[in-house]
Amino acid sequence: MFTDKLKKYKGESDYSYTLGIYPTIELLKNKPNLVKNIIFHPEINTSEGYEKIVKLCKENNIEPVINSFPFKILSSKENVYVIGVFDKYKSSIVKNEDTLVLNNPENAGNVGTIIRTMVGFGVNNLVIIKPSVDLFSPEVIRASMGAIFKNNFEYFESLAAYKAVTANNFYYFGGGGEDLASSPIDHPFSLIFGNEGSGLSQEDILSGKKLTIKMSNNIDSYNLAVAVGIALFHAKK
Amino acid sequence: MFTDKLKKYKGESDYSYTLGIYPTIELLKNKPNLVKNIIFHPEINTSEGYEKIVKLCKENNIEPVINSFPFKILSSKENVYVIGVFDKYKSSIVKNEDTLVLNNPENAGNVGTIIRTMVGFGVNNLVIIKPSVDLFSPEVIRASMGAIFKNNFEYFESLAAYKAVTANNFYYFGGGGEDLASSPIDHPFSLIFGNEGSGLSQEDILSGKKLTIKMSNNIDSYNLAVAVGIALFHAKK
Repeated sequence: MFTDKLKKYKGESDYSYTLGIYPTIELLKNKPNLVKNIIFHPEINTSEGYEKIVKLCKENNIEPVINSFPFKILSSKENVYVIGVFDKYKSSIVKNEDTLVLNNPENAGNVGTIIRTMVGFGVNNLVIIKPSVDLFSPEVIRASMGAIFKNNFEYFESLAAYKAVTANNFYYFGGGGEDLASSPIDHPFSLIFGNEGSGLSQEDILSGKKLTIKMSNNIDSYNLAVAVGIALFHAKK
Repeated sequence: MFTDKLKKYKGESDYSYTLGIYPTIELLKNKPNLVKNIIFHPEINTSEGYEKIVKLCKENNIEPVINSFPFKILSSKENVYVIGVFDKYKSSIVKNEDTLVLNNPENAGNVGTIIRTMVGFGVNNLVIIKPSVDLFSPEVIRASMGAIFKNNFEYFESLAAYKAVTANNFYYFGGGGEDLASSPIDHPFSLIFGNEGSGLSQEDILSGKKLTIKMSNNIDSYNLAVAVGIALFHAKK
């Protein structure tokens, strides 16, 4: 693949990008067979991260290239000195393990941060109810610090469609319900969070339990990634 | 003040900006006397938020202006249709109340999200150890959703300088220590978090207790705002 031909990521594209050291290392560690190119910026410093990438490339018979052009196209603002190009892949959740469910998430930074948090807590199944941000968008991958390559994920058309294929205990967050701090969570669980702006609507709530994170009247809501982190911490205690 | 003369925010400036509906409403509710201007974009929709701002302006004898120019200077990318201009102010913490301490935070989005989370948990004192991102930068204010106007904050030159003025119980996060989930937190507390990249160093740790949030080997760290959210949830149970 000629790296001069790379274009900004689009949902219909067959491949996507890791921007920066961390996600590129995780790509090479977890999905080496899917790597099409590793591209260094001519001005990259020979840091520890750089050495690690060179070593991982060698182990996987990948010959990195040096080209400044793709950086102009793919990362105009941020301090990015390495890009990985990889084939997108299909991922599936394990149906009856602990799972996080995001209903129509739209902010790439939130979703990436959430994937990083899930992997930290050892909850490795992410269900996304469409419409949603594209998990393969480089912003999600970057905010996940590459944790996405260690996680299972699967898109569903509706919460009902997902509920039909799992026996997990369902817990809904936001808009009333019992105080999370005093509610035990039974495994295997599915923790369900709504959209950043609109939350879960009444019609999203199927059978299961409603939970809430205590909050003063001085704010309208917690940030989605913060709320998910709190719920995972409590559920995995 | 002629709004045509507004310039990009700088740390040495006497005033700063709220960008967008939420932070501007919170500015008008909490610090009306500091407001210099409310500026609407000519294309703003007459939403519920707009109506609220018009009403708050009226109550406070502020005459909003309409001018598209400042939006080009102050918010080139985002969907911002209202700007508040306000005089910066001095804030002080209440010394022996529950407090969050951020040592050298550098990411504006993280710090804003943390302020929103603190206010949600009713922890209203934020200590910042310099060097640090500027709390009055419009990115912090925006990420806080305006919660900064309800919070006390104070800068210190070092953790030791802060410790000298408080009798709070100190808890340090990151880099070993007891599992947070099984450690009680005694009030009044100071929860202390390091920089996003480098965390707390050994020389930052004064007397107090080290705590850690359990984490798999699959990630290097939690996002700072997520970690603070978890710690506040646990401390305020």
